[in-house]
Amino acid sequence: MLEIVHNPAKDVLNVIKIGGKLIENKELLDSFLTDFVQLKGPKILVHGGGNKATEVAGKLGFKTRMIDGRRITDKDSMEVITMVYAGLLNKSIVAKLQGHKQNAIGLCGADANVLISRKREVKDIDYGLVGDVVQVNTEFIKSILKQEIVPVFSAISSTDDGVLLNTNGDSVASEIAIAMSNIYITQLFYCSEKKGVLKNIHDDDSVIAELNSDKYQQLKASKVLTDGMLPKLHNCFEAINRGVSTVYLGDAELLKKGAKHTKIVN
Amino acid sequence: MLEIVHNPAKDVLNVIKIGGKLIENKELLDSFLTDFVQLKGPKILVHGGGNKATEVAGKLGFKTRMIDGRRITDKDSMEVITMVYAGLLNKSIVAKLQGHKQNAIGLCGADANVLISRKREVKDIDYGLVGDVVQVNTEFIKSILKQEIVPVFSAISSTDDGVLLNTNGDSVASEIAIAMSNIYITQLFYCSEKKGVLKNIHDDDSVIAELNSDKYQQLKASKVLTDGMLPKLHNCFEAINRGVSTVYLGDAELLKKGAKHTKIVN
Repeated sequence: MLEIVHNPAKDVLNVIKIGGKLIENKELLDSFLTDFVQLKGPKILVHGGGNKATEVAGKLGFKTRMIDGRRITDKDSMEVITMVYAGLLNKSIVAKLQGHKQNAIGLCGADANVLISRKREVKDIDYGLVGDVVQVNTEFIKSILKQEIVPVFSAISSTDDGVLLNTNGDSVASEIAIAMSNIYITQLFYCSEKKGVLKNIHDDDSVIAELNSDKYQQLKASKVLTDGMLPKLHNCFEAINRGVSTVYLGDAELLKKGAKHTKIVN
Repeated sequence: MLEIVHNPAKDVLNVIKIGGKLIENKELLDSFLTDFVQLKGPKILVHGGGNKATEVAGKLGFKTRMIDGRRITDKDSMEVITMVYAGLLNKSIVAKLQGHKQNAIGLCGADANVLISRKREVKDIDYGLVGDVVQVNTEFIKSILKQEIVPVFSAISSTDDGVLLNTNGDSVASEIAIAMSNIYITQLFYCSEKKGVLKNIHDDDSVIAELNSDKYQQLKASKVLTDGMLPKLHNCFEAINRGVSTVYLGDAELLKKGAKHTKIVN
């Protein structure tokens, strides 16, 4: 297990985001959840949807429209996303956690108004029913955590008028972690395909162990960091600047003792 | 609005079950929800799935197997039910309630272990992943109600090993109402196609206003009640005998002031 920050004034809260292959591959997901249940203290899980929504949409005869690699979420797509993310994937994860005797509750943004978002403004492209989180109901989340129940979030938020919106899973995780840092010392974990930030893009083991803002600027200036990594790191440092204590980047094994990862600090 | 029982010792809790056409028809559902949000005090909504699951299953290429009018829930069917009931329908209802400024939270049985069930024993026919509720987490439901949030249940329960099971919606509602009657005076409302129990099956307006156990036995003996109504009434009187204060049977307009209905009392 990773090092846990201790502070007498506030408890530590771990917010863990999973997505991509980790959601699609049953063995990877089961292995991850086994590690997750062993993580002590208050914790929150956020999951994306992987390719399951596209697969189901295809079978239902809905075309998934993409522009520059981004999904256009029309009404039919949003129905499929609600079915797959908030239904199938979310409740399967909750049920698996209950099977591990880890009490959990599945939530989308509309539940208890937990993630209020604003529909993204239409500029050049109308991405449709897509939103950005503007408010997190921290009191409700705290009430769940106090009952030793793990909130499991699908990446769906809601306007304050009750319109469900497709929302970036990484942002859902960081907005929750940022908002909860008023109450807890929050640590944010992104589990994806890579073991962390790489010194050499061609060497999956060249993981940079720790990155602070100064080192990040240096590596950016010296072109060591690839373009693909920059938006993700920008998000990570935004989380750090807005109150999150530490961000960890790693793969499906991130929660395992001794797993390689990148630790991002102030 | 219907008469509300008052008691200084306990608050009144209303548990309302909707299903069938009321779920399938947008106008009926919107009209019902408008009435529902006006109902004062703690309340719980339970919904079935109507024909949407069969429709989605068909489009996904899964055959829905029925024996004597009852669905056989295999693994594929259970995935579709989880998508449609716990995802699409449940979250759409929650979002609509939020749109009415009625705070709500969508739950299936696995969430916070709120509805623990046992898989139905295989006798002549194996109905598959079908369960009967054996335990209701009343403490968790109470904690939600105390925050003035309406729990919205899809008709899915979970074994204590985290296996999701398809569950009869009427039974989910009655088991919740029965369990909650330890804490509240509970009233149970079944909204379905008929205005209530009919004196004359060919006259939809021949609604019996009130039915107690004695009158029920008399009507049963004199063959006034049709076979189709008997299992439903058996359930109603079981709820009454196990602690529910009153059961109301009516149609989509049951919550409207002056709506015809049958009131079932001890």
